[in-house]
Amino acid sequence: MHMQIDRLTPENFQFYGDVIDAQNAATHYLINKGTTTRFHDLAKVDIVSDDVNPANVGISIFRGDARVFPLRISMLERHPLGSQAFMPLNQKPYLIVVAPSLDEHRPDIHKMKVFWAKASQGVNYACGTWHHPLIALGDAADFLVIDRIGSGHNCDEYEFDEAFVYQIDETDFARFSS
Amino acid sequence: MHMQIDRLTPENFQFYGDVIDAQNAATHYLINKGTTTRFHDLAKVDIVSDDVNPANVGISIFRGDARVFPLRISMLERHPLGSQAFMPLNQKPYLIVVAPSLDEHRPDIHKMKVFWAKASQGVNYACGTWHHPLIALGDAADFLVIDRIGSGHNCDEYEFDEAFVYQIDETDFARFSS
Repeated sequence: MHMQIDRLTPENFQFYGDVIDAQNAATHYLINKGTTTRFHDLAKVDIVSDDVNPANVGISIFRGDARVFPLRISMLERHPLGSQAFMPLNQKPYLIVVAPSLDEHRPDIHKMKVFWAKASQGVNYACGTWHHPLIALGDAADFLVIDRIGSGHNCDEYEFDEAFVYQIDETDFARFSS
Repeated sequence: MHMQIDRLTPENFQFYGDVIDAQNAATHYLINKGTTTRFHDLAKVDIVSDDVNPANVGISIFRGDARVFPLRISMLERHPLGSQAFMPLNQKPYLIVVAPSLDEHRPDIHKMKVFWAKASQGVNYACGTWHHPLIALGDAADFLVIDRIGSGHNCDEYEFDEAFVYQIDETDFARFSS
């Protein structure tokens, strides 16, 4: 199995969620008497909340360990009750692995994709999108996370029968890093 | 009029909102098979939404110009329908200016306070807190902003009769920068 790596763009990620990037803002305007530019409404925050399982939008920080390559990818997860946004706080790039659904319960792991996110790009997984946990490149890294905090079952994990070993190609690494 | 500057802490800011800082997290735990630490629920996202003025939590990026000191502080603003969180994305410190309310319509500008926020600290203004727009130190800086996006009147501005000129003390600047 081969996973192609692509730069993260709003176009190639649209099936999975949003790219949080000032550069791709559909709307931006000056505020604060011209001293600040607002790049407006970059991600759809989508939280299921009802009387049985009340929830709020929460703000947390995730500190991801540096990952060692080749990387063993042995599971994906999804959040059925809410979107989950990650914004890097250490000006470092990171990797994103996602897959479409095969059926109601499983990701289609033969269609997994890997994306290289620039240091200035955040990502917002749409509700129910299968994705791999944080993959920080190089050092441990902090991310601001905006996700659902509340009761109810909001995390499905899918363990692979066999781990997939992913090695980022050196040429790709050099190309994306530059 | 003199404004004392203090380091931003959850204690000295509690009247105005939350400090978003992994270091001050009341709750943190390992997730993702031990590869990630979650510093959990660091700010209260508080958005007024009803049938007349429906609203969502939005994610935007604010790019603040570098401010020139001495700084002319001539207004404060507040958002009566929602909290507003700022997280620095460029690993640079910044300043926060807030004031309590004098009455229903005005801030008590004689009680303005200034806080030095470290590069690793975000801030979440509680609904209705009078605050100054972004004050980036040094270079222009990007912040991730989590605030209310929807209809209805959600910004009051209060213009001072006379601008207050604020110069950060060199000793303070050196002390906080180090």
